[in-house]
Amino acid sequence: MPIGHEAHLQHISKRFNNELKNLRDHMLVMGGMVEKQVQQALTSLLTVDSELASDVKSNDKEVNKLELIIDEECTNVIALQQPAASDLRLVITITKMVNDLERIGDEAKKIAKSTLQLSDHGLAPLGLAEVRVIGNHVRKMLNDSLDAFTRFDTALAYEVIKEDEDVDAEYRSAMRALVTNMMEDARNISSILQIMWVLRSLERVGDHSRNLCQHIIYMVEGRDVRHSSLKETEEVIHHNP
Amino acid sequence: MPIGHEAHLQHISKRFNNELKNLRDHMLVMGGMVEKQVQQALTSLLTVDSELASDVKSNDKEVNKLELIIDEECTNVIALQQPAASDLRLVITITKMVNDLERIGDEAKKIAKSTLQLSDHGLAPLGLAEVRVIGNHVRKMLNDSLDAFTRFDTALAYEVIKEDEDVDAEYRSAMRALVTNMMEDARNISSILQIMWVLRSLERVGDHSRNLCQHIIYMVEGRDVRHSSLKETEEVIHHNP
Repeated sequence: MPIGHEAHLQHISKRFNNELKNLRDHMLVMGGMVEKQVQQALTSLLTVDSELASDVKSNDKEVNKLELIIDEECTNVIALQQPAASDLRLVITITKMVNDLERIGDEAKKIAKSTLQLSDHGLAPLGLAEVRVIGNHVRKMLNDSLDAFTRFDTALAYEVIKEDEDVDAEYRSAMRALVTNMMEDARNISSILQIMWVLRSLERVGDHSRNLCQHIIYMVEGRDVRHSSLKETEEVIHHNP
Repeated sequence: MPIGHEAHLQHISKRFNNELKNLRDHMLVMGGMVEKQVQQALTSLLTVDSELASDVKSNDKEVNKLELIIDEECTNVIALQQPAASDLRLVITITKMVNDLERIGDEAKKIAKSTLQLSDHGLAPLGLAEVRVIGNHVRKMLNDSLDAFTRFDTALAYEVIKEDEDVDAEYRSAMRALVTNMMEDARNISSILQIMWVLRSLERVGDHSRNLCQHIIYMVEGRDVRHSSLKETEEVIHHNP
């Protein structure tokens, strides 16, 4: 049976001494940190700001710490409160989302490392327009994922899942263009490779945002839509058989 | 408090009607499937066998299905049996390991896709020696991870975690050589890029095998060693403070 936001909040306040609410809040704090990491990693690359890139690298440790803390909180809630049905789904969803958030943080760190490499070797302007476009696209997907979680909004979650296919198409087209550039001028190979790694990281951020939204649909609907087609996923959120 | 293999088996047979044992067995079946996927993906690449590569691609669906099934089994065990302490750790560890196994399966599928690309465009012999060496290395890590899980063997798990650093070094050195090759002969760029993606996938298989072993140490010792240094991890398995 699908659950609503209100039902959850009511339940939370009565039974679990705000523990479930704390879990949700902590996950959203981590989500906000990860969003900032992705944004700053992109800015560091596009403005060749190696100081900002170093900040992103070192802030990744904080993201990792939060993953461990929230994961432990989830285990404790399961062990001590023995939540059932939709509460258990909420806790399990949070452990899974935290894992994807941590991996998004890793991708931000990889982008920051590419910034440092490029600022050492001289920046190639090739591919930066694509980085900006795809970067903004996946940042929006991540932001929408966190909104969808906050509002138990499966329709928004579904939109994000659908958008991941657009990002994949943008990624493939950007990569093809860069391969052509490489062949035309072999002197740019090193820097173009760095931009390729960055695009790959951004594409991964899109994948993880899609994962976040699949977890949200599981939380609300109790149906696991990982590895489902778009059509199957749409049927789940519209409660068709 | 650390748990031993015997204590677990005893407990399992008495209380949970073999449910925990089934979970472990199912995860090991999935582990075996994923091992085979990685092995066949590598063979398909090294022998330019596009039929085998197509098999790997389609078998990935079976791996994905197993992930969903085992994950649901884990949720049911938590909801219905309300396991505590080390039993809960076992179940939570299995959900996490299943996630890493599924991602290893994804990397095998990506390697199979590269085989298909390369057999379409003509295979470049460059980099295949490195693929073979690193491929065998990460296959051994994956195999050892599953053994470490079967035997609750934290010393073996620690060895795998340590080996991931060797794989990372091998990967970096192979990538440097390939960049040089690219610069020397721009005609090989497309096929060398494919081999780079394959090496990246293999390096990811190593990372996921390391993750599996970190989960195993958590299961046995109750201490989360993700994001810990090698030295800290070693202290945990030797029960130093």
